[in-house]
Amino acid sequence: MFPKNTWYVAATPNEIADRPLGRQICGHKLVIYRPRPGELAALEDFCPHRGAPLSLGKVCDGALVCGYHGLAMGCDGKTVSMPGQRVGAFPAIRRYPAVERHGFIWVWPGEAALADPALIPHLAWAENPDWAYGGDLYHVRCDYRLMIDNLMDLTHETYVHSTSIGQKEIDETPVTTRIEGQEVVCRRYMDGVMAPPFWRANLRAHGLPDDQPVDRWQVCRFSPPSQVMIEVGVALAGHGGYEAAPQHKVSSVVVDFITPETESTMWYFWGMARNFRVQDAELTTQIRQGQGQVFAEDTAILEQQQKSVEAWPGRKLLMLNIDAGGVQARRMIDKMIAAECAVVAATGAPAIGPAAPKTESPHAAAVASAA
Amino acid sequence: MFPKNTWYVAATPNEIADRPLGRQICGHKLVIYRPRPGELAALEDFCPHRGAPLSLGKVCDGALVCGYHGLAMGCDGKTVSMPGQRVGAFPAIRRYPAVERHGFIWVWPGEAALADPALIPHLAWAENPDWAYGGDLYHVRCDYRLMIDNLMDLTHETYVHSTSIGQKEIDETPVTTRIEGQEVVCRRYMDGVMAPPFWRANLRAHGLPDDQPVDRWQVCRFSPPSQVMIEVGVALAGHGGYEAAPQHKVSSVVVDFITPETESTMWYFWGMARNFRVQDAELTTQIRQGQGQVFAEDTAILEQQQKSVEAWPGRKLLMLNIDAGGVQARRMIDKMIAAECAVVAATGAPAIGPAAPKTESPHAAAVASAA
Amino acid sequence: MFPKNTWYVAATPNEIADRPLGRQICGHKLVIYRPRPGELAALEDFCPHRGAPLSLGKVCDGALVCGYHGLAMGCDGKTVSMPGQRVGAFPAIRRYPAVERHGFIWVWPGEAALADPALIPHLAWAENPDWAYGGDLYHVRCDYRLMIDNLMDLTHETYVHSTSIGQKEIDETPVTTRIEGQEVVCRRYMDGVMAPPFWRANLRAHGLPDDQPVDRWQVCRFSPPSQVMIEVGVALAGHGGYEAAPQHKVSSVVVDFITPETESTMWYFWGMARNFRVQDAELTTQIRQGQGQVFAEDTAILEQQQKSVEAWPGRKLLMLNIDAGGVQARRMIDKMIAAECAVVAATGAPAIGPAAPKTESPHAAAVASAA
Repeated sequence: MFPKNTWYVAATPNEIADRPLGRQICGHKLVIYRPRPGELAALEDFCPHRGAPLSLGKVCDGALVCGYHGLAMGCDGKTVSMPGQRVGAFPAIRRYPAVERHGFIWVWPGEAALADPALIPHLAWAENPDWAYGGDLYHVRCDYRLMIDNLMDLTHETYVHSTSIGQKEIDETPVTTRIEGQEVVCRRYMDGVMAPPFWRANLRAHGLPDDQPVDRWQVCRFSPPSQVMIEVGVALAGHGGYEAAPQHKVSSVVVDFITPETESTMWYFWGMARNFRVQDAELTTQIRQGQGQVFAEDTAILEQQQKSVEAWPGRKLLMLNIDAGGVQARRMIDKMIAAECAVVAATGAPAIGPAAPKTESPHAAAVASAA
Repeated sequence: MFPKNTWYVAATPNEIADRPLGRQICGHKLVIYRPRPGELAALEDFCPHRGAPLSLGKVCDGALVCGYHGLAMGCDGKTVSMPGQRVGAFPAIRRYPAVERHGFIWVWPGEAALADPALIPHLAWAENPDWAYGGDLYHVRCDYRLMIDNLMDLTHETYVHSTSIGQKEIDETPVTTRIEGQEVVCRRYMDGVMAPPFWRANLRAHGLPDDQPVDRWQVCRFSPPSQVMIEVGVALAGHGGYEAAPQHKVSSVVVDFITPETESTMWYFWGMARNFRVQDAELTTQIRQGQGQVFAEDTAILEQQQKSVEAWPGRKLLMLNIDAGGVQARRMIDKMIAAECAVVAATGAPAIGPAAPKTESPHAAAVASAA
Repeated sequence: MFPKNTWYVAATPNEIADRPLGRQICGHKLVIYRPRPGELAALEDFCPHRGAPLSLGKVCDGALVCGYHGLAMGCDGKTVSMPGQRVGAFPAIRRYPAVERHGFIWVWPGEAALADPALIPHLAWAENPDWAYGGDLYHVRCDYRLMIDNLMDLTHETYVHSTSIGQKEIDETPVTTRIEGQEVVCRRYMDGVMAPPFWRANLRAHGLPDDQPVDRWQVCRFSPPSQVMIEVGVALAGHGGYEAAPQHKVSSVVVDFITPETESTMWYFWGMARNFRVQDAELTTQIRQGQGQVFAEDTAILEQQQKSVEAWPGRKLLMLNIDAGGVQARRMIDKMIAAECAVVAATGAPAIGPAAPKTESPHAAAVASAA
């Protein structure tokens, strides 16, 4: 169950640099490609001639040429030409709205008429020279909502990431969960703690001492359908914590775009945005490697959790205070799905419903202002 | 859906040289083996004792001895003996008609009483000292009819085999499709074109220039249930093309026996028959390697096409003029299946129906006369 | 179909030495672990918080701490604590009776109230300084009853293990099958035969000649639900065979605990108990390696048999005199299952039934006395 009338991150530009990309999003098999440099298109990955996946083809003169018999498909889903054929009556294939923005390829798997690019979330750190971003993509065999739960309850860090970012104080410090506009926000502030290995290394890299108490914070911001941005950082204790001046702290934004592939698999676009040493490509690589290891730990346990949940279908899970972020996020998701269904039921038409709520992304602004 | 009252190529002799072979044909699990040198048998791959596959056993004194507890099975499907047992009342297992001919093992998966060896297609190039044959076997995860489509529409060569046998003129030259007796024949003649890499190499090997225009031809001959023979060649332009005298041309027959394993998988016995340098074993090896690469390209796209067709069940595919060969072939196949079903419906008996049509193989004769 | 109100070997101690073990037994997913050194517990492998498998966690102060968010589970299935939570109302998870005995971890997958440790079979060779044991565990993709059949009809040795323990006389010598109390016993005595390679090596290792006729015996003892102990040995011919004095013979007990994982997969705990050179660890290793190869041969054919039986569902298999051991064993198993179902049907309560029959294990005593 996933909302469809909404934008999902479907790919990163490097994935379509050389060739079309076949990718399943919300159960829809898509081919995503560049008709011409700088252009973008997403279509059903199905050649109307004999059903071969168009993603096996090549782009030629703006058309996607099927790799089987050479049907040339236009980016509107209509066949442009085929050697020796009149193609006017060929059935069209479905076109999916696709937009390149903030360094990602966004796709709208639902009703195309509703796909307003203005609904793509604003990411304050993206395309901002004061910020650098690095990240990668993991394929994870779990329901996308398990990943949201994971990111909205960071007490797991103590157990899953004990050697890098986990520390006992995460468990011991209460979290507050609030709905703020279109966001669910979970905040945890740990004052006067010793930083775990990941943050000690970051402190050193900033020329800050790593053996003194720090104030650590985690602010998780969920925006529907499945985006989680987490402001994380440490400041030398007593300088204001989250609000401390830049010279006393190290902070960044953990970026998570969680895109359903099927009911039980997902694409995990993860990364980190930072506003320090933004020209330092080696640091970007180093952070990406570290994050890659951390998120591989999540992936491992989430895939086991998925199998377990499937083995005990219908069994109730607990919803504790620490789970409130995930619970609220699922509530927002369920509302989106219900709204889509209601419109379909009322009109008999598929998926013509109210647009997804505009995401205002106050978090990114907050981060930027804190930097 | 496949006809069963017909002969299929099930194996090559080398596959049963040392041990029994377990192989599924049209959904039937068979063990194929040599009871004695030069003899051949095919049975259900099921030991009546405890159900172990007989193909794990060994041949001993003409019997197939089960590798589990030593039941000795006769080639008529009746147990010959078992240590310490009276076997007279043991249930028989099904025997399948099997014939070795033209360098292949042919099996009849349907009603044994109808299995007339005279119905095995005549292959003019087989067992003819003026011809040499080389080939191999691929297992392909697709409906066998997708492979027939593939071979009856060679416009795919331009896209799938662009570095070997593909060339733009294949697309641009109309194909003619005719039903000739029990065959579907697709013909394409490309006059005055430059030969693609595969044929340039063949021209050189014949001492012919590779930098001059040639007349190229492709004559695809489908015989039910699933055999496709393709006469292919090039002649120096202006010498008569397909009809040119041997010294001006290079030609051969692409041999394709397409045997269903299940509804969505198949055995692909492919090869090439040629009537030049027939003693040259190294050339046979070289051609087999080249063909192997080409057919691996087909296999890759067909397996993707199969997945795609399964993901969009019921979705109509186009049937263009270039698809006429496959369409006509499927029509013949459907008729065979309908005839088998009709007889079953009328008599209440399984699969007693009219014999499959005799395949007269005029193409092989044509090739031979052209040589 | 398997009895559940009975003890199964679920693991060996080394498997839980360092960390909790996740293992499926009779369709139940369990975590088996040591709460404290020397203690043992088995629980549902499901954290009541978010469903993660508890087997991914760690033991800490006697509790099993979930590796996801730190819920601490007690060995009674009740949550002990969780950081920042009141856990009193947390739902309990199922506890499974588990006992460590005779060098194995035994689990009772059925009604806990019926789990009397006194029902665990007595193994005379276990924890007896005059005996040594070595063995290992294989996962086999077959119905556990196929493995019982395999072990109760050793005529397969001639075919499956022809290079080690097989010999033609096994086939040729009749077997007797008797029900003795709670056991099914198959006996075969082969007098005056030449020993096969495995036994020749053993004779040499005992300083006995390997080129003289021997009396060989095989006594297979099945105890429900799925334990098979096989007394095997050879004595120099004419010294009394099975009853011969120790200096004239070599003998041991093949140990087989066969534990269903699912309807079509199983855990095979195999080994050998011997009462000679019991201090010789290298010999133990050597025997384990030899047995490992032999049982890998069984595994290979059983997995093929399973596939074959699944491909021909409902097809009857033969039940010959050599199969009587397996047939009688299945009859005992079926009675246990029927008894469990009858009680459930009569009371409407799940799996509260008569306890599994006590296994008196006369065979082990017999082996000991023969040694």
